[in-house]
Amino acid sequence: MKLSKLVGKRVKEMPTGATLKSHILLLRSGYIKQVGAGIFSLLPPAQRVSMKIQAIIRDEMNKLGGQEVLFPVVMPRELWDMSGRYDSIKEELVRFKDRTGHDMLLGMTHEEAAVHMMMNTATSHEDLPAMIYQIQTKFRDEARSRGGLIRVREFTMKDAYSFHNTQEDLDSYYKKVYDAYVRIYKRIGFKNFVVVEGDNGIMGGKISHEYMAVTDAGEDSLVVCPKCGYASNMEVACCVKDANDGDIAGEMQEVFTGNAHTIEEVCAFLETDAKHSAKAVCYKTETDGKLVVAFLRGDHDINETKLSKLVKSALEYVEVEDFGLCAGNIGLVDLKVPEGSYVFYDKTLQGLEDFVTGANKADYHIKNVSMSRDMKDVEFVDIALVKEGERCVHCGEVLTHTRGIEIGNIFQLGTKYTSTMGMKINMPDGSAKEPIMGCYGIGVGRNLASIIEEKADDKGLVWPMTIAPWQVHLCPLRVDNEKVAEVSEELYKLMQEAGIEVLYDERNVSAGVKLTDSELMGVPLRVVISPKTLENSQAEVTIRATGEKIFVALNDLIYELIMMIKDEIQEIEKDL
Amino acid sequence: MKLSKLVGKRVKEMPTGATLKSHILLLRSGYIKQVGAGIFSLLPPAQRVSMKIQAIIRDEMNKLGGQEVLFPVVMPRELWDMSGRYDSIKEELVRFKDRTGHDMLLGMTHEEAAVHMMMNTATSHEDLPAMIYQIQTKFRDEARSRGGLIRVREFTMKDAYSFHNTQEDLDSYYKKVYDAYVRIYKRIGFKNFVVVEGDNGIMGGKISHEYMAVTDAGEDSLVVCPKCGYASNMEVACCVKDANDGDIAGEMQEVFTGNAHTIEEVCAFLETDAKHSAKAVCYKTETDGKLVVAFLRGDHDINETKLSKLVKSALEYVEVEDFGLCAGNIGLVDLKVPEGSYVFYDKTLQGLEDFVTGANKADYHIKNVSMSRDMKDVEFVDIALVKEGERCVHCGEVLTHTRGIEIGNIFQLGTKYTSTMGMKINMPDGSAKEPIMGCYGIGVGRNLASIIEEKADDKGLVWPMTIAPWQVHLCPLRVDNEKVAEVSEELYKLMQEAGIEVLYDERNVSAGVKLTDSELMGVPLRVVISPKTLENSQAEVTIRATGEKIFVALNDLIYELIMMIKDEIQEIEKDL
Repeated sequence: MKLSKLVGKRVKEMPTGATLKSHILLLRSGYIKQVGAGIFSLLPPAQRVSMKIQAIIRDEMNKLGGQEVLFPVVMPRELWDMSGRYDSIKEELVRFKDRTGHDMLLGMTHEEAAVHMMMNTATSHEDLPAMIYQIQTKFRDEARSRGGLIRVREFTMKDAYSFHNTQEDLDSYYKKVYDAYVRIYKRIGFKNFVVVEGDNGIMGGKISHEYMAVTDAGEDSLVVCPKCGYASNMEVACCVKDANDGDIAGEMQEVFTGNAHTIEEVCAFLETDAKHSAKAVCYKTETDGKLVVAFLRGDHDINETKLSKLVKSALEYVEVEDFGLCAGNIGLVDLKVPEGSYVFYDKTLQGLEDFVTGANKADYHIKNVSMSRDMKDVEFVDIALVKEGERCVHCGEVLTHTRGIEIGNIFQLGTKYTSTMGMKINMPDGSAKEPIMGCYGIGVGRNLASIIEEKADDKGLVWPMTIAPWQVHLCPLRVDNEKVAEVSEELYKLMQEAGIEVLYDERNVSAGVKLTDSELMGVPLRVVISPKTLENSQAEVTIRATGEKIFVALNDLIYELIMMIKDEIQEIEKDL
Repeated sequence: MKLSKLVGKRVKEMPTGATLKSHILLLRSGYIKQVGAGIFSLLPPAQRVSMKIQAIIRDEMNKLGGQEVLFPVVMPRELWDMSGRYDSIKEELVRFKDRTGHDMLLGMTHEEAAVHMMMNTATSHEDLPAMIYQIQTKFRDEARSRGGLIRVREFTMKDAYSFHNTQEDLDSYYKKVYDAYVRIYKRIGFKNFVVVEGDNGIMGGKISHEYMAVTDAGEDSLVVCPKCGYASNMEVACCVKDANDGDIAGEMQEVFTGNAHTIEEVCAFLETDAKHSAKAVCYKTETDGKLVVAFLRGDHDINETKLSKLVKSALEYVEVEDFGLCAGNIGLVDLKVPEGSYVFYDKTLQGLEDFVTGANKADYHIKNVSMSRDMKDVEFVDIALVKEGERCVHCGEVLTHTRGIEIGNIFQLGTKYTSTMGMKINMPDGSAKEPIMGCYGIGVGRNLASIIEEKADDKGLVWPMTIAPWQVHLCPLRVDNEKVAEVSEELYKLMQEAGIEVLYDERNVSAGVKLTDSELMGVPLRVVISPKTLENSQAEVTIRATGEKIFVALNDLIYELIMMIKDEIQEIEKDL
């Protein structure tokens, strides 16, 4: 490809409204162009990267025995009525009426379409297991698209669906997909990604995992154990809380605390540490407006996701006075709540002695409270956020707090879709059974953007060899020099013949423009030909990722490039 | 791929509601499944064929210097407001509001998105010519989807857009695309396709061509010249009309014709041939309700498409009495029509002598009319349908009438989109100019279905080697025979290692089921291994297209298959 003919303009100016590195660089390098909110066109270089990522995904899916299919983007309402999702999914799902007035929708995922394909197709236990997948456009009407290709409304996604006779078969297949996903991210070039449990099963939830590119640009808060590899989304993270100690307290005693209401104010007033206090956090349930009171040790924060799962409802702000409580003075001892209210005690309170809590009346708290003496028979639950400095539940190492972008996920779906849609298969014993499903997604564009977040530097994009739009950026300086032009043309021809994917900057522009452009574009190897390099019959080869430069004799150049390309791919794929 | 694991069921039963060969066979062979009206899922074999067709298209587009991109399926209204198509396209265009109430649409084609990508990207004449293309899902809300993949609402399409500085440059590029399209269809395996002019320029329309697979299943009526290759959609076809002769008539004479109103009735009543009559066909314009009277020789039919172009409006049924005419007795002589009406005389009337026409009063016609004597200064136009037996305008050969399916089209768009959207480039003389565009479409699924219409037989599908889902169908009979099973497993392994795409029917079912399935699936080469073939250490190889059988020594089988595959591909691609 000649750069002068490449569709796309490189620009120096910082694009307005873009804050993420990947967003800024994709715009500046002429890789993408915004068409609408959360909607982008991919220019040729981005499409080339996208297709390489797709090829890696396809290869790994095929190795798992996956069979590529194509589901429709537009589906009739009836299909989604069967699963109940036509009603249960809110504004994210685009609905429209066709010319006959029929209700249609744009597929966000394709569980229904997958079951539709398999129904009456797989009818016997002998037809399973089977995995079908597609790589296709999806549209989700996200409320807040942002960050270029990180969170968009329209995107290319690989979605796969597996069908199994037994949970054991799904378990063993799920493990294989889990590993294939790890290979996919390694092959794409990620060095820094973790797998987190999507749902740690507090409520017996289904097993799922999210693959997270670790980057400050991420939307998700993560904790990662640097020793054993435990990683979790903050929303569901567990840890070992630092133990409570201290002596059994003296007798409980009401103390005047006046306007001190927050736990910080109360502890400051009473000159005690927040570690020696219990605070209450209150909500009401969205579903039926029940009061929810959660007690934690004063130096901890509530994890609303965990709490929400416990009460099986979203949580809303509550005016506690409506339930007869005294705001700012709620305490564990002698708490009176209406029947049907929820009261929870976090594990951080377990074994706590000699602490302060609200007295459940205005202006007063109680001190010298003891869990063991004053709050017998309390059941403790895990509803606190993991704090900095807390330790891994598996190995005790101090957890690292970081951020991540979800670059893929895998789920065990169970029979949710096969049972609602009525798909059954004949089992060996003659019974009819609903197959058990798994589903496995990867967003192609988000991977493209996330690898930029990991690799790019202040000069521009840096592509891993496995997904680079081109392998070599041929960059003659001074093309007005006859010898330079002639050698470069010849090299361009030779590279193409050797199967090297080459971007050839044959423009007659300054060295500064050419080198800056090449750094911005991020092609892994740059070959500079100039009057100076030709003096020694050499080319200067620069590795984009490291900046390392080597001089190679022209006669050896093609061979050396092929070897460098091969080496870099081998390095990326070395421990698959 | 093992057949027992292939997702998809083959069925004997004729599917209800399907009439076209391709529709029936794609359903019966487990290639497609209907999800909604005009909406299908592709099962693994169809997706494999689709991807092979896409690869051929991609290769030819890349050879033209095309750069692959990706435009969004969903676009904001604003983009289509710029071109005016948001309003001008009716119900075919799916519109919906997103969660913020913003007007969005599903792209039917991507001219606007292509200009959006090129605008501010190509700014100088040096940036052009450029061609960008995508292969992507489109949705058109067709009123009447039918025929399986022939006319659907959702489909995979390659759409390409080229941008040029001058008309000459477009002309020369257009010719290259024209040829590339011919290569694409040949490589897909079509033997019987023609290129027709989409619009023969009566109204100075833009140049365009449609590629038509010639088949009785086609929706379009075509005329094709078997000698010079002239081909045209019936709607715009020209021909040499058979000449009028005969003597100058005697004096005009009114004759009573009573209830004889149609030209057939009148000619029968007067005992003359329809060749010696002139009939009137009347409409009114949809745009402004003007009367349109078209005269043709009595044995010809009106071509409404041509007539519609002449008056630049769609045509509607008219009650001629509303315009003061006498239905059934309209004639050329002394015709009185309201001011602003259109009156046309078809070329079939040129030189006509001694003919009958209406007398423009009830119960009467006039005979002995002469064009040269009684209708001086008439201008003749081409508004008749081409009839059976008429001759080619180019070479005089009798034209063949047939039907076709449009499998692709190419257009010269001019500056319609660049001017409405305001895209300009700087020319060498310092002026700013709107680039001239071409656009080029191919529907992948329709090609897949059309090749079936051409190739399939009463036993099932017949795939050309270039797009076959698999190259070889390995079909052991009697897998309960240890030797058969062992040899087949070994061959399956060897074929895969040799890079042969093989479908392996390892099921323990009857020979009848296996052979019938293999014929239905349409894989080009079938290899049968049975106790009988093994007696001579042979395999039986059957060519699906011809039914030809050969016996090959097992030791030579892999080599022979590779050669047969290569030969068939070479045969298909021989005159590219």
